[in-house]
Amino acid sequence: MKSEIIAIGSEMLTPWRQDTNSLYLTERFNEIGVTVTFKTIVGDRMKDLVGAIRTALGRTDIVVLMGGLGPTEDDLTREAVAEALGISLRRDAAQVAALHARAATWRIAMPQNNLKQADVLEGATVLTNPNGSAPGQWLDVTFEHYRKVIVLVPGPPNECKPLFDAECIPRLKQVVPERHIAKRTLRAAMIPESQADKLLAPIYTTYKDVETTILAHAGDIQLTLLCAKANAEQARQRVDELASRLEEALEDWLYSSEGESLEQIVLYYLGLRQSTLAVAESCTGGMISQRITSVAGSSRSFVGGAVVYSDALKSAFAGVSADLIAKHGAVSAEVAEALANGIRLRTGATLGLGITGIAGPTGATDEKPIGLVYIALSDPSRTEVMDRTFRGDRARVREWATQQALDLVRRRLM
Amino acid sequence: MKSEIIAIGSEMLTPWRQDTNSLYLTERFNEIGVTVTFKTIVGDRMKDLVGAIRTALGRTDIVVLMGGLGPTEDDLTREAVAEALGISLRRDAAQVAALHARAATWRIAMPQNNLKQADVLEGATVLTNPNGSAPGQWLDVTFEHYRKVIVLVPGPPNECKPLFDAECIPRLKQVVPERHIAKRTLRAAMIPESQADKLLAPIYTTYKDVETTILAHAGDIQLTLLCAKANAEQARQRVDELASRLEEALEDWLYSSEGESLEQIVLYYLGLRQSTLAVAESCTGGMISQRITSVAGSSRSFVGGAVVYSDALKSAFAGVSADLIAKHGAVSAEVAEALANGIRLRTGATLGLGITGIAGPTGATDEKPIGLVYIALSDPSRTEVMDRTFRGDRARVREWATQQALDLVRRRLM
Repeated sequence: MKSEIIAIGSEMLTPWRQDTNSLYLTERFNEIGVTVTFKTIVGDRMKDLVGAIRTALGRTDIVVLMGGLGPTEDDLTREAVAEALGISLRRDAAQVAALHARAATWRIAMPQNNLKQADVLEGATVLTNPNGSAPGQWLDVTFEHYRKVIVLVPGPPNECKPLFDAECIPRLKQVVPERHIAKRTLRAAMIPESQADKLLAPIYTTYKDVETTILAHAGDIQLTLLCAKANAEQARQRVDELASRLEEALEDWLYSSEGESLEQIVLYYLGLRQSTLAVAESCTGGMISQRITSVAGSSRSFVGGAVVYSDALKSAFAGVSADLIAKHGAVSAEVAEALANGIRLRTGATLGLGITGIAGPTGATDEKPIGLVYIALSDPSRTEVMDRTFRGDRARVREWATQQALDLVRRRLM
Repeated sequence: MKSEIIAIGSEMLTPWRQDTNSLYLTERFNEIGVTVTFKTIVGDRMKDLVGAIRTALGRTDIVVLMGGLGPTEDDLTREAVAEALGISLRRDAAQVAALHARAATWRIAMPQNNLKQADVLEGATVLTNPNGSAPGQWLDVTFEHYRKVIVLVPGPPNECKPLFDAECIPRLKQVVPERHIAKRTLRAAMIPESQADKLLAPIYTTYKDVETTILAHAGDIQLTLLCAKANAEQARQRVDELASRLEEALEDWLYSSEGESLEQIVLYYLGLRQSTLAVAESCTGGMISQRITSVAGSSRSFVGGAVVYSDALKSAFAGVSADLIAKHGAVSAEVAEALANGIRLRTGATLGLGITGIAGPTGATDEKPIGLVYIALSDPSRTEVMDRTFRGDRARVREWATQQALDLVRRRLM
């Protein structure tokens, strides 16, 4: 079955705000075998809203209306559905009582316009909203001879998502033919995109019943495999079979078989090897540490490190000699190596990671272009240094460098 | 005039990818006085596309079609416009030659299906794409008795944005009645949202001709003021007048009058005072350093610092005594103060910032809840320490703590 998600609110038609609820709703829809075929964003104007609702009913089976359920004059979703379908709104006594009770709990006077939220569409089921005053509504109607479902859900993410899960998904399962969905996410680091495509497309395109989505960002590739079947076991088997073949093709570029992030995997291997890591960052300026420490429990294997943005700090915190910097330059293989060794020795960590480069937009020399990065990894037995030149602006160079550095640690521990 | 942006591509109907180009296009549209009244996302299916194009032409004046211009079978935008309008596509000799020339430059054989990209709609103007092989197209048509503009632009952001700026904006200015747009962005830190609303709403709601948008995220509030008038001077005056009144109301919560980020402002003041900053981060794990170093040229005032994730590193890099940690705990006002002082002395920076806290999800004690953060700022004359308890998950606590720490530095320098 097909669905359309309509996000309602003029603020989502500005350059600064975007609907993100629909990503969550799409995931939940896909899990029960419903495809999202259109997403529409419309402002708080009656005529636009009524038109968008009619258009959606004409082209899909299930229409979700998100937002516009509050108490203000701009909240027009209920009225727009009534007009689009030619049905009436009635003020629901139970909902009025609930609004009064809510106001009493919060010890606030209830403004008259709040009562709008108790207006229920003819024939609709009220959907309880545990986190807000505006309930959702569920409507099963006939529109131009076809059966259609219309769902009204509140816009704030903390109201929309739990209400959709608790009230809509169970009802949708009654409407949608039963499908079992199997899903797997594989991730790989630093494989060139064109190479990934060449390796993987010949495999996944032969699995017509598995929907494969590939996302690439700054040296990270994520493959999501989704299969819907009447039989759960069959769906699972198809996804696992394809996943195995893709894993094999990805060889050691693959770092995750169940969607874990690269920093999670690095921490997992550090734990497994009973190793610890310290980092001396220059051009990435804390980004590597920040990614690692975003994982809860990272303190077990990550001791910390230094952001050695000045030459003086390269010496003070990682023991890099001023002579070495003068001789080779702060951006050099030698300094990267000294940073890795130095931070390891200073912190007593098992592994030391050092990184120095030119993130841009200035700082390039004749020999050293913007995007040039040296990454070194040291353990008591050896130190390796790699250089890479990443393209793009300052933010992109830093993201790629961070990804490459984490991947270097992963490969050492594997 | 009204416009609709249609983003084309099945990947944008998955839970993992979102159209972001439209935010940029919306900003550019608003600057020339065009309102975006609908945004639609549609997959690579002929029937859906044709329907979406017709719907858009029926409800807006300017329709932008983004994506679906590549060489693959899934790229259907040209064909869909031809079908929606009942016009023909012709293979353009000049475009065929351009594709061959491009392939020759890259020394690659040109696959036959690439030639699709040379198909031009009847009556369309070809828009040069400097960053890709698929050109854009501009079409001025009559649809159901009304004049409409249809623009086809490529989907990849690095192709879409420059092409839209160079080829579409000048042409749109010929079509759109001349409007002058004045714009200002104000930013404020750490002001409670309810307080901001109470202070600001009575002011900006009286300026009906200025569109005010407020965005809040993790202790940061951004107000954007936009005014469109036939007279440029009048638009500018209205925006500046409102901006002055809002600035006054925001008092010292205001940190930026022209949209600069908090880290930019901190670096600006550091430069002005000829001061330098060093940071010792525990719970934020590098996030403060990362934000500061995201600004080009930050090395002039930011020397770096330490990510002191373990107790040992708090001692090694910031000279915090093991006794002090044992006595008060790693998360304490005393340790934050010692971190700030220690990192300042170790690095020779003018200012030292120390931060320690419990980001969660574990680590709370009876006295110290999740979200408790101590932030200390030290200069040669004094050290101040503040404690805050932030709500939310690990990521949010870290974001709020980072924002509060940067704001503390700003206030000291102001």
